[in-house]
Amino acid sequence: MAEGGRGGNKLSRLDGKAPEGSDFANYFCTYAYLYHQKDMLEDHKRTGAYYNAVMQNRRQFKDKVVLDVGTGSGILAIFSAMAGAKKVYAVEATDMAKHARTLVAHNKFEGVIEVVQGTIETIELPEKVDIIISEWMGYFLLRESMLDSVLLARDKFLKPGGALYPSHARMFMAPMRTNASAGRINDFQNAMYGWSEFLKEMKGFYQVDLDCLSESYRKEQKDYYMSTSAWGNVHPSQLMGPGTCFKKYDLHTITIEELKAELDADISMPIVDACGPVDAFCGWFDVEFKGSEENPADDPVKLPTAPDATGPTHWGQQVFMLHPSIDVAAGDSLATKVKVARQKVNHRLLELDLEVKVTGNSIHATSEPRQFNWHID
Amino acid sequence: MAEGGRGGNKLSRLDGKAPEGSDFANYFCTYAYLYHQKDMLEDHKRTGAYYNAVMQNRRQFKDKVVLDVGTGSGILAIFSAMAGAKKVYAVEATDMAKHARTLVAHNKFEGVIEVVQGTIETIELPEKVDIIISEWMGYFLLRESMLDSVLLARDKFLKPGGALYPSHARMFMAPMRTNASAGRINDFQNAMYGWSEFLKEMKGFYQVDLDCLSESYRKEQKDYYMSTSAWGNVHPSQLMGPGTCFKKYDLHTITIEELKAELDADISMPIVDACGPVDAFCGWFDVEFKGSEENPADDPVKLPTAPDATGPTHWGQQVFMLHPSIDVAAGDSLATKVKVARQKVNHRLLELDLEVKVTGNSIHATSEPRQFNWHID
Repeated sequence: MAEGGRGGNKLSRLDGKAPEGSDFANYFCTYAYLYHQKDMLEDHKRTGAYYNAVMQNRRQFKDKVVLDVGTGSGILAIFSAMAGAKKVYAVEATDMAKHARTLVAHNKFEGVIEVVQGTIETIELPEKVDIIISEWMGYFLLRESMLDSVLLARDKFLKPGGALYPSHARMFMAPMRTNASAGRINDFQNAMYGWSEFLKEMKGFYQVDLDCLSESYRKEQKDYYMSTSAWGNVHPSQLMGPGTCFKKYDLHTITIEELKAELDADISMPIVDACGPVDAFCGWFDVEFKGSEENPADDPVKLPTAPDATGPTHWGQQVFMLHPSIDVAAGDSLATKVKVARQKVNHRLLELDLEVKVTGNSIHATSEPRQFNWHID
Repeated sequence: MAEGGRGGNKLSRLDGKAPEGSDFANYFCTYAYLYHQKDMLEDHKRTGAYYNAVMQNRRQFKDKVVLDVGTGSGILAIFSAMAGAKKVYAVEATDMAKHARTLVAHNKFEGVIEVVQGTIETIELPEKVDIIISEWMGYFLLRESMLDSVLLARDKFLKPGGALYPSHARMFMAPMRTNASAGRINDFQNAMYGWSEFLKEMKGFYQVDLDCLSESYRKEQKDYYMSTSAWGNVHPSQLMGPGTCFKKYDLHTITIEELKAELDADISMPIVDACGPVDAFCGWFDVEFKGSEENPADDPVKLPTAPDATGPTHWGQQVFMLHPSIDVAAGDSLATKVKVARQKVNHRLLELDLEVKVTGNSIHATSEPRQFNWHID
């Protein structure tokens, strides 16, 4: 590492600031718990994919300088060191960084791995890096908006031609049926019956009429029960057609502005299996480790999160329930305008809008599209 | 209301700022939901006590100026107006204030009640008030630290001799037995078995040894399972002795500094019913509406939250589980040093420390005290 420069000890020169209070309360706080790290580590479809991506491509890691963005427990930094990296900077915003240092030392990698505590936005590094590795994906890929920080790290620290692991990401959607929709509608109706009883009590006991709030309450409850997406472990048999890709990312080239802009896509989702109506949409993602154009991976690896009979990753899939359901027949398609945007109140959360028309030769083809909106909290 | 002064419309002169981002994320955000307001309103032991406190003492409210701190839906302001108040300022920090305005108008009190949106700390009022009414109590009385704001309102806005509704508060503790302690210990042990299996997987699949984090994981899990208090609906039959009061507040005289300081108390909790060991402590509070010395309430009202066979208020009681249990016999007492303090990370959350000795003539009397610590999150 280069000496001199700003002076001060190595640690203080690199360490950055803690996350801002509100962002810590909303987002970062859970990552400081070992329990949460364990949950992610023991998702072996996830951790194993990263292990394979590094170990199968150890030629790309040997004698290189690596940056691990959001190192958590330090595991990806350790994989990189095991693959022969010359130096690894492992950056972590929360106090989990202290546990990462312990793990690195205990596994005898302190000569290679330097844990830096702070946000990527505020830390400094004494050199540019050859590889950036990061596990940044949230539910529905983009929830948590951690990719912003990875791209910032790329723009700040990655040498020209350097590689991002993973290198690519794709988002998919498919029509599905779920028995959860009926449950949600039932819960919503019960909430409204409960409100009706409550109104009578308030009028009877206290002579206060809360009926003027009924419409607001209805909106609040409908939004909660019907317009909030859910984590699901979706079985492939619930899908009524194949997943249709509605977005692709090349992480080497996309800009932060492009990422932050609203995502718009026009897709057509085929209906293959229609023993019932469509009562939800299923969303998921995959990422690939292909290296960069200048430094391609010897042996690309894919980490999928599609519905899988052998079980889900910890990401599951996102289930977007709708009511009333959409009648379709096999051979129809759903012509869909997709819009994904960040929530105004919290940029780490998302909103999904779909405008859906049934197209095809069956009696279910619609001329007027239906609008749907969900928030992904 | 006095005209002139700073000018601008009435609303902009009074309205204050929204809560700071981190405090909003940690505390205020749930109060913006009608669902949460409904939960509190339909706790009729709570809402009815306030109704009685106002209506039974309408002579104290007639033609007076009232301030409702944290009005939420506006209900206490409406009770005050129904009792004949001349003017009510209903202050609410969140967007629930908009619903409060709707409710006030719909119930035809807009001539009396003015809803002001902002924190008590930042709003201004054009006059001092005769009465401050507020429902500020959190779990274990002090959780949420809303009393700070009520005392600030008192110091800022209450006329000399003015009354606070409620006027007094007390905190109680009793030894109890609960079947939940064994469940918690079981959950903790399962978490440690799970960690042990996880270590083997990580070593086997990835050749990474996480045993250096075992002690930290153990501390984290023990803290979570064994040192976090729980909301409980405690049946009186679970108490092993009467509640002992360990703190009294006269809200007219206590200063904010006194409130923020650590609470220390020395108590002796008698054991009356000892068909088993003590495996938890039960904490609760009550408040009273007695008016001020200069303006006493005609008909004082008490709002208790002690274990009650007819059911709990929404506050329930706080249950502090301990392990191993404390052996006692009927006739013994628990000589206890009580300490309640605010958590450093979030001043709206609490910590409880107890130092307990068994005193009495039975074989269980101890010479060395045992230390316990819980956080109330």
